[in-house]
Amino acid sequence: MKRIGLNCDLGESFGNWRLGADEELLGRITTASLACGFHGGDPVTMRRSVAAAVEHGVAVGSHPGLPDLLGFGRRVMEVSPEDLHAYVVYQSGALEAFLRPHGRGLDHVKPHGALYPMLNRREDLAVAAVDAMFEVMERPALFWPAGSEDRALLRVARDRGVRVMREFYPDSRYGADGETVVERHREPMSPDDAEAALRRFLGTQKVETIDGGTIPLAAESICVHGDGPTATAIVERVCAVLDELGVARQAATESEDAIP
Amino acid sequence: MKRIGLNCDLGESFGNWRLGADEELLGRITTASLACGFHGGDPVTMRRSVAAAVEHGVAVGSHPGLPDLLGFGRRVMEVSPEDLHAYVVYQSGALEAFLRPHGRGLDHVKPHGALYPMLNRREDLAVAAVDAMFEVMERPALFWPAGSEDRALLRVARDRGVRVMREFYPDSRYGADGETVVERHREPMSPDDAEAALRRFLGTQKVETIDGGTIPLAAESICVHGDGPTATAIVERVCAVLDELGVARQAATESEDAIP
Amino acid sequence: MKRIGLNCDLGESFGNWRLGADEELLGRITTASLACGFHGGDPVTMRRSVAAAVEHGVAVGSHPGLPDLLGFGRRVMEVSPEDLHAYVVYQSGALEAFLRPHGRGLDHVKPHGALYPMLNRREDLAVAAVDAMFEVMERPALFWPAGSEDRALLRVARDRGVRVMREFYPDSRYGADGETVVERHREPMSPDDAEAALRRFLGTQKVETIDGGTIPLAAESICVHGDGPTATAIVERVCAVLDELGVARQAATESEDAIP
Amino acid sequence: MKRIGLNCDLGESFGNWRLGADEELLGRITTASLACGFHGGDPVTMRRSVAAAVEHGVAVGSHPGLPDLLGFGRRVMEVSPEDLHAYVVYQSGALEAFLRPHGRGLDHVKPHGALYPMLNRREDLAVAAVDAMFEVMERPALFWPAGSEDRALLRVARDRGVRVMREFYPDSRYGADGETVVERHREPMSPDDAEAALRRFLGTQKVETIDGGTIPLAAESICVHGDGPTATAIVERVCAVLDELGVARQAATESEDAIP
Repeated sequence: MKRIGLNCDLGESFGNWRLGADEELLGRITTASLACGFHGGDPVTMRRSVAAAVEHGVAVGSHPGLPDLLGFGRRVMEVSPEDLHAYVVYQSGALEAFLRPHGRGLDHVKPHGALYPMLNRREDLAVAAVDAMFEVMERPALFWPAGSEDRALLRVARDRGVRVMREFYPDSRYGADGETVVERHREPMSPDDAEAALRRFLGTQKVETIDGGTIPLAAESICVHGDGPTATAIVERVCAVLDELGVARQAATESEDAIP
Repeated sequence: MKRIGLNCDLGESFGNWRLGADEELLGRITTASLACGFHGGDPVTMRRSVAAAVEHGVAVGSHPGLPDLLGFGRRVMEVSPEDLHAYVVYQSGALEAFLRPHGRGLDHVKPHGALYPMLNRREDLAVAAVDAMFEVMERPALFWPAGSEDRALLRVARDRGVRVMREFYPDSRYGADGETVVERHREPMSPDDAEAALRRFLGTQKVETIDGGTIPLAAESICVHGDGPTATAIVERVCAVLDELGVARQAATESEDAIP
Repeated sequence: MKRIGLNCDLGESFGNWRLGADEELLGRITTASLACGFHGGDPVTMRRSVAAAVEHGVAVGSHPGLPDLLGFGRRVMEVSPEDLHAYVVYQSGALEAFLRPHGRGLDHVKPHGALYPMLNRREDLAVAAVDAMFEVMERPALFWPAGSEDRALLRVARDRGVRVMREFYPDSRYGADGETVVERHREPMSPDDAEAALRRFLGTQKVETIDGGTIPLAAESICVHGDGPTATAIVERVCAVLDELGVARQAATESEDAIP
Repeated sequence: MKRIGLNCDLGESFGNWRLGADEELLGRITTASLACGFHGGDPVTMRRSVAAAVEHGVAVGSHPGLPDLLGFGRRVMEVSPEDLHAYVVYQSGALEAFLRPHGRGLDHVKPHGALYPMLNRREDLAVAAVDAMFEVMERPALFWPAGSEDRALLRVARDRGVRVMREFYPDSRYGADGETVVERHREPMSPDDAEAALRRFLGTQKVETIDGGTIPLAAESICVHGDGPTATAIVERVCAVLDELGVARQAATESEDAIP
């Protein structure tokens, strides 16, 4: 491996409530997915986050969520395909309007929170999300957790020619099916454990699973959760390991590997 | 007068709540200003309204409002210039994302509700709104009620080269200062009275004021409030009078008169 | 049958958006369930609705919903039992505060919209809802659609001594399992069909199902959906039929039949 | 002075966003004013905050705010008296519903944020707020910043027999008119400066103003802003000084001084 992306989900503050160490992280990552006002983020936060990301040369994609501020977009909701289509276009379009004065466009779309299980399972929602992506990007790029390829959104995205950037999470635990274990009150992972998982992934293209096995995992980007108390420490470790191994950090969408 | 625009504010339904006779009005008007989800409207409504407007050949601008759904954006709020800038970009960008798949862009920006008095009085907010307009349109166009030219937003807009489309309201009453009288529970105007006001305006470029006087009024577009019970009837009268007098209906932004 | 309740869900307007023929219905019904600001309703609407209901001698219960204004509380959400408990207490408490100055208390609690399937299926949520009801009422009463008794909320409520008021819907169609058929865009039922269904129910304690069969159905109250275009006409028919048959209209919670 | 109250505004987290060191502060104060879901707070936060406050023996009042989550209720809004009345009842009623299972009632009402200047200036809003207080408390108590008595809400409250608990802020700076200086981005006060201001107030019943003068100030409670980074340190200093001087901490509403 010669190069890999390093991305975080940022801009998730809302009004007077702060979340995440955005300023510290922007100096180290290649790519940011910004909240767009539904599960977090607000217009002022978006405008400031875009300006800060552009200043740091970080590629910016949208991180659209469910209209559930109270639940931070992490509660599955039975929305219709028409609902989801409109939510993705609305949020991504709003974010792009903040990028355009900087001469920039959307780097990618990365659905948030409870949209993961929803878009992995429901084909109709996956089609709606991909349709929406083609309306907001000329050559759509999707960020999505690495794992099984047999999930609704990945199937639809690849069929339609969407560029897919798979993410490896050094700060998460993996189930036997290759999915990350999502807990509502998750134990923060120590920087040491995250570093060990990262070295294993970089050396063997494998991850350990919670039942003690290992599974192969391919990814175009390393994703660190931006809201944890150890996020900055983990990102620093990731950078140090990549430097040590001579792996360049490059936005996944800029890498030729990313083009299917 | 050879031609004039005819516009309505539409798309102000929210979720299950319906407002306005949008479908009936779209067949008769030249220009629509669509709510963008803050004071009214929602992503699904916006997507449907854009599709319907495009189908009818109606020019579409954004109608950004205050973040006050409960008050329908009609309560003055002490927002900062940074707040307002971000709100106008966010809402206009979201709307434009629904227009782009139709090969269309924003026709104009028309601030909503309590933004009228706020932008007429506060220079700092007017500057923020115009800055935002230049970020979302290459050649910004503003729709604003006709009346005195000596108001903050009009001064700033004209100074900066924004194209200004002034609106005449046949269904409103005018004060001696040329401003329309805004009442929270306003008496609906009869189609007969609206027609009389329109004929006076078209014939003499003047409007009667509530104190019995008349004042001159210049306008590039006729605006009918889309949410009144008599809106459709008034728009039909407007069309009949314009036809009778040989005045063509043409979107104000398409008319050469509209270019300063 | 000597007497039966007649209830509607009301107060579902929000801000400037009107919904339902509340004023016309309040003069004819015994019981109203009022929206509490989550799926619909707002503080001003609640205060006015309570005053109007009290003036008409109508018993008032809370109609708490999911925090999903955009979806009118009709989209299933994966809330936790702690979430639901707090939502029911919050909304019911807010409503009761408007009743107290009139010397009145909550008549009952009737969960709204997508809470039906959620509370029918999930035992943990049913327990949370019943716990909440005991915090907001001394002798809790629940309004719930008649049908199978083997549903989570009914089981938990009866086990805990909650008074259960089952509702018969003359304006809905029933499945073979006794559940009403909920369609997102439901065909309004004609007053004639509603009257026929009502007469069958009153005469035989049975309802026809959509597959042509009949099933027995016991109910303490007749519920008419307050937001349909034919709601007032159907309520008038219900009153006429009850008068003709000598069945008194009496709030279900005031009837001794209602006490388990 | 033999005893004085010590209060904080708490429960201002919202969903996943945390704000304030509530747990640390509850062990030291006599009285908490809890956010009620409009400017901050949410049903789950309210339920948990009430339980924690009751466990610590802290008196709980409502801290109702404007319906402006994005602006944290700190932006003046032109609401009507009817709006405000309903907002105060709704929020206070919701909070009380969480208190009742603990056998407790509302200790007081303390309007939040931009309601300060609004209720100081507008008599119609002050009347609406006091009317609302009488609907949610049998013997209403108001917490309000000490300063001039000639402000709308204080005049109306005293005229109507509301018990008024005036607050002294050791962590704020005072203008010559006795009002605290509210800055959107306020400099946190050092614990040393706060202690000095407190000792001056306790010793002389006076505060220094920003123009170098001193003014007399009477107060029934000491209020520390709960969301500052130095809040816990300042509250610890306040407790130490009160202990040293033999001034007991007692909820203001429990003191006979508080009864007019």
